Amino acid sequence: MATVTYINSFEVPPGRDEDFLALWTEVNAYMRKQPGYLSHRLHRSLGSDARYRYVNVVQWESVDRWQDAHGEEFRAIVTRPGQHVFASLPGMYEVVNDGQAA
Amino acid sequence: MATVTYINSFEVPPGRDEDFLALWTEVNAYMRKQPGYLSHRLHRSLGSDARYRYVNVVQWESVDRWQDAHGEEFRAIVTRPGQHVFASLPGMYEVVNDGQAA
Repeated sequence: MATVTYINSFEVPPGRDEDFLALWTEVNAYMRKQPGYLSHRLHRSLGSDARYRYVNVVQWESVDRWQDAHGEEFRAIVTRPGQHVFASLPGMYEVVNDGQAA
Repeated sequence: MATVTYINSFEVPPGRDEDFLALWTEVNAYMRKQPGYLSHRLHRSLGSDARYRYVNVVQWESVDRWQDAHGEEFRAIVTRPGQHVFASLPGMYEVVNDGQAA
């Protein structure tokens, strides 16, 4: 089975980390329960001047599973009144080359 | 030991994949021999309209090791006369949260 990798990069201004992580944690808790979710790694930039200070890399079983996870329940979480929307750059990828140290 | 994650996203126009992969493969072969390199995954976008069609995610032992790997020999590879330069968005990250399916 060829899995897919969803990479979502977030623009989080310095000082907004707490707000971002609260929302991200809630979305992540939801995603982890969805069929097809395999694993994730959330990365934070070591420097404060990166355009995308957070990058989430998530393995899914398939594009279809990932799409199914973005239904009404998901939208309800991210569109609550007063919810700050962090700009993001989402994309769906496949691994075409990997390797590790000998 | 806290490792670091280097994420480099590349703008590769459709049709330029062969040129990009030739250069990337050469740089990767060099990097894999450097002290501190741990592993990598090169991702290619499933859609052709992504801004960043390739995203390389690389684990290094430390920022210092990564910096040491970007010396003269590296520059000689990427600055050859006639070498096309692919625009990229590089950043150094740390993993702040990870998990997997139950």
